[in-house]
Amino acid sequence: VVDVDGVHIGGGSIAVIAGPCAVEALDELSETADAVKAAGAVLLSSGAYKPRTSPYAFAGLRERGLELLASVKARTRLPIVTEVQDTETLCRVAAVADMLLVSARNMGNLALLAAIGDTGKPVLLKRGLSATVDEWLLAAEYIASRGNERVVLCERGIRTFDTHTKATLDLGVIPYLRGLTHLPIAIDPCHSSGRRDSVPALCRAAVAAGADALALEVHRDPSCAVMDGEQSIDHDELARVMADVRAIARALGRTVVEV
Amino acid sequence: VVDVDGVHIGGGSIAVIAGPCAVEALDELSETADAVKAAGAVLLSSGAYKPRTSPYAFAGLRERGLELLASVKARTRLPIVTEVQDTETLCRVAAVADMLLVSARNMGNLALLAAIGDTGKPVLLKRGLSATVDEWLLAAEYIASRGNERVVLCERGIRTFDTHTKATLDLGVIPYLRGLTHLPIAIDPCHSSGRRDSVPALCRAAVAAGADALALEVHRDPSCAVMDGEQSIDHDELARVMADVRAIARALGRTVVEV
Amino acid sequence: VVDVDGVHIGGGSIAVIAGPCAVEALDELSETADAVKAAGAVLLSSGAYKPRTSPYAFAGLRERGLELLASVKARTRLPIVTEVQDTETLCRVAAVADMLLVSARNMGNLALLAAIGDTGKPVLLKRGLSATVDEWLLAAEYIASRGNERVVLCERGIRTFDTHTKATLDLGVIPYLRGLTHLPIAIDPCHSSGRRDSVPALCRAAVAAGADALALEVHRDPSCAVMDGEQSIDHDELARVMADVRAIARALGRTVVEV
Amino acid sequence: VVDVDGVHIGGGSIAVIAGPCAVEALDELSETADAVKAAGAVLLSSGAYKPRTSPYAFAGLRERGLELLASVKARTRLPIVTEVQDTETLCRVAAVADMLLVSARNMGNLALLAAIGDTGKPVLLKRGLSATVDEWLLAAEYIASRGNERVVLCERGIRTFDTHTKATLDLGVIPYLRGLTHLPIAIDPCHSSGRRDSVPALCRAAVAAGADALALEVHRDPSCAVMDGEQSIDHDELARVMADVRAIARALGRTVVEV
Repeated sequence: VVDVDGVHIGGGSIAVIAGPCAVEALDELSETADAVKAAGAVLLSSGAYKPRTSPYAFAGLRERGLELLASVKARTRLPIVTEVQDTETLCRVAAVADMLLVSARNMGNLALLAAIGDTGKPVLLKRGLSATVDEWLLAAEYIASRGNERVVLCERGIRTFDTHTKATLDLGVIPYLRGLTHLPIAIDPCHSSGRRDSVPALCRAAVAAGADALALEVHRDPSCAVMDGEQSIDHDELARVMADVRAIARALGRTVVEV
Repeated sequence: VVDVDGVHIGGGSIAVIAGPCAVEALDELSETADAVKAAGAVLLSSGAYKPRTSPYAFAGLRERGLELLASVKARTRLPIVTEVQDTETLCRVAAVADMLLVSARNMGNLALLAAIGDTGKPVLLKRGLSATVDEWLLAAEYIASRGNERVVLCERGIRTFDTHTKATLDLGVIPYLRGLTHLPIAIDPCHSSGRRDSVPALCRAAVAAGADALALEVHRDPSCAVMDGEQSIDHDELARVMADVRAIARALGRTVVEV
Repeated sequence: VVDVDGVHIGGGSIAVIAGPCAVEALDELSETADAVKAAGAVLLSSGAYKPRTSPYAFAGLRERGLELLASVKARTRLPIVTEVQDTETLCRVAAVADMLLVSARNMGNLALLAAIGDTGKPVLLKRGLSATVDEWLLAAEYIASRGNERVVLCERGIRTFDTHTKATLDLGVIPYLRGLTHLPIAIDPCHSSGRRDSVPALCRAAVAAGADALALEVHRDPSCAVMDGEQSIDHDELARVMADVRAIARALGRTVVEV
Repeated sequence: VVDVDGVHIGGGSIAVIAGPCAVEALDELSETADAVKAAGAVLLSSGAYKPRTSPYAFAGLRERGLELLASVKARTRLPIVTEVQDTETLCRVAAVADMLLVSARNMGNLALLAAIGDTGKPVLLKRGLSATVDEWLLAAEYIASRGNERVVLCERGIRTFDTHTKATLDLGVIPYLRGLTHLPIAIDPCHSSGRRDSVPALCRAAVAAGADALALEVHRDPSCAVMDGEQSIDHDELARVMADVRAIARALGRTVVEV
């Protein structure tokens, strides 16, 4: 079980992490945080630093984004999950984050993994786009070998020939990892599908397959999101997803983490 | 909705297809058929003709296998799903089968698809190992263009770099296909995972994601199965899977097809 | 060494197979055959039966295509390589073809492989889009196990995440197969790249890597080709490719098969 | 054209980069450097810092490795190509390296790319295991956007379903990149194949396809190499590869860069 500022991930209950892909502005973050909390999600995720494939793309509000996250946390009491993109900004991010997100592109960034290990902070470690399960576990081991075992593995889809979704969500890792590790497993259906209309079905599937957590991109108006709008769900959809997640959890004798 | 000798696939309810990978002997098939029926599965699947990657591998009991399927059907009243591997044996297979299974390797076998179209029989059309969704739908169209629209699409995993499972089950096709076609969708978690211990979790996930049917390999003693034992579940596991499937279906306001 | 009506494939020399993707009309086939012969290619390839992903696409001139191939062969004396798509049309195709082409989609069509084995005709066996080397060799074994060892393996690209080309040409199979089999190896750079402007470089690479044969799509006016124009080279480009192939062969102490 | 301490990469000639995967000891590095120079390769490559998938694997001689590289350079005058693995060690590595190697795992490490851009040093930028060509070019753009356009792109194989080699070498990128960028292109046949016996054929293919450079792993006794011995060639094989490379270059009207 990984304890994120009082929220437990692992141990049978299902924790839902949700929030906008990028911090855009105070009112937007604040409104979504309220919706996230109202829906029953227990961790607020959003990116202040956004590593992008193109050097010319929006790279996040950076320090200003961290300030907004801190202020929304102070009001809502939702612990914050946010991405750390490099060792240079790790200290600043770790000062605000309750859980550090390592994106797929950084799963193999060993200096970053080691430095995160030194912080002792909970980590949401996404699987690399073409990482085998062994490579993923060894990335977790880089963090653990520095004395930080608070790692949650997050499957976010792998790169395949298939193009109907942005990546192919590999739910088969859930039963497979159970035989290899005690680390909790989160599923990110938004990055894998890249399609908003696929997210609810994949959330249900993830919970039924036994995921310990869901990591969701939520926006008050996905069509206007600065980033990842096409794969973000809106507040109403989040509420419906939470209802389904609760129903499936109950049917299988599991619970959903509540604050 | 595809009607297989009175069993409806599609339309909201979940139909479970189960049986041994290959017909091995009368007592073995008969015993599993009874277990399949007792567990609440509604279609019996097993292969008499088994196309194999190696010309020296066991290729099925062939005509003798069809006779055994017919005799077990006469006793149990379970409709039969069995593979048709080529146009040469199609007539014989179609005389016994209530539903023709087209395996992944034959998804692109156009002469076979056309001939199956001419039979008018229900078809369980597996997705090719590296078929895009478009190619899969066009294979269905080959059958439909001969006047046979009784096609159920069956996802059985795609070939990816990943080796922890035999193939990567692509559950994202369920929501995606809903926007493209009215054809029912079945999920085969056994061929995709290649691992018995992954099957229950993937069954639950498939039903939660909205699958219309499950196609399962079941054997009374998987460790002794002539084929695919490593990915077959036993009778007790089938009963547990069915219980979970019913619980999830109920939680989501769906039902499981009963005879 | 596989002998195709007097043309030897394997044994150190490089044989070039070329022609239009599909037989379109007598003058078109005839003109390309002359260009193919003038350039120094030794086998004429073209399809009369064209299995297509869509049931509504042009499926070839069929029997009329075979007649045109026979008539052009009678005039030019170029042995014919043409696709056989199913067991139903095998007899007709085998009556005209000097070498039977099995396309990637049919590499796993066991009934077809067995029937081709029975003809004893030389075979150009393309690798399936997602076939491992072992699966490919076992497909060859299906043919050989019927007593026909006249098989040439043809690499035509595999399906990967990469989309800059239609398929990724896997030239690494050449040295790898040398350690596993004595069967000659052909390379098809047109289907793998799907781009005319990539074909010359891949032809040079294939010959330098040690290919026994090249299989090329050539059209007098690729922009007007009924099929595969985007990946066909024109007559002038063929002549340039042949010059490069001869230069590389000479540099490496090899020769190019001449009539 | 990228100028690496007087050695030109790009512009028609072929530059060969070679050396042991990791710096192991002075006599070993020195002996291989002599063999590399004698064979006609013009840049010495070897790793002092070795990022590894496992935190428990040998991670290189680190600073001592850099000292050995500097001393061998002083004697042989061969410019040094060596990996930079993180921003923390960049300054030290850049003080010795004439060309910085960015490995596949770090292609998406944006902080590192930016910092390398600031050094102005020539860069050998390997393609990520599952990077599209667009993503690879955008990684180069991260370096170039800091004012450093001295980037050589290095294809080292992509991750596919295929397991006969460690990765599938995608030579189709050579003609494709020619239409998109003026950056020189290097090919690494050792990491892609993972098999020593495949290296010579892939070297010949790369040069015939138009590569501007080859990057090779060479060891005096591959069976005793600390790392990557299975894919390293020995000194004699390097000499044979160089002879073939020269012969193909001459046949195609190209030259090989000499010191």
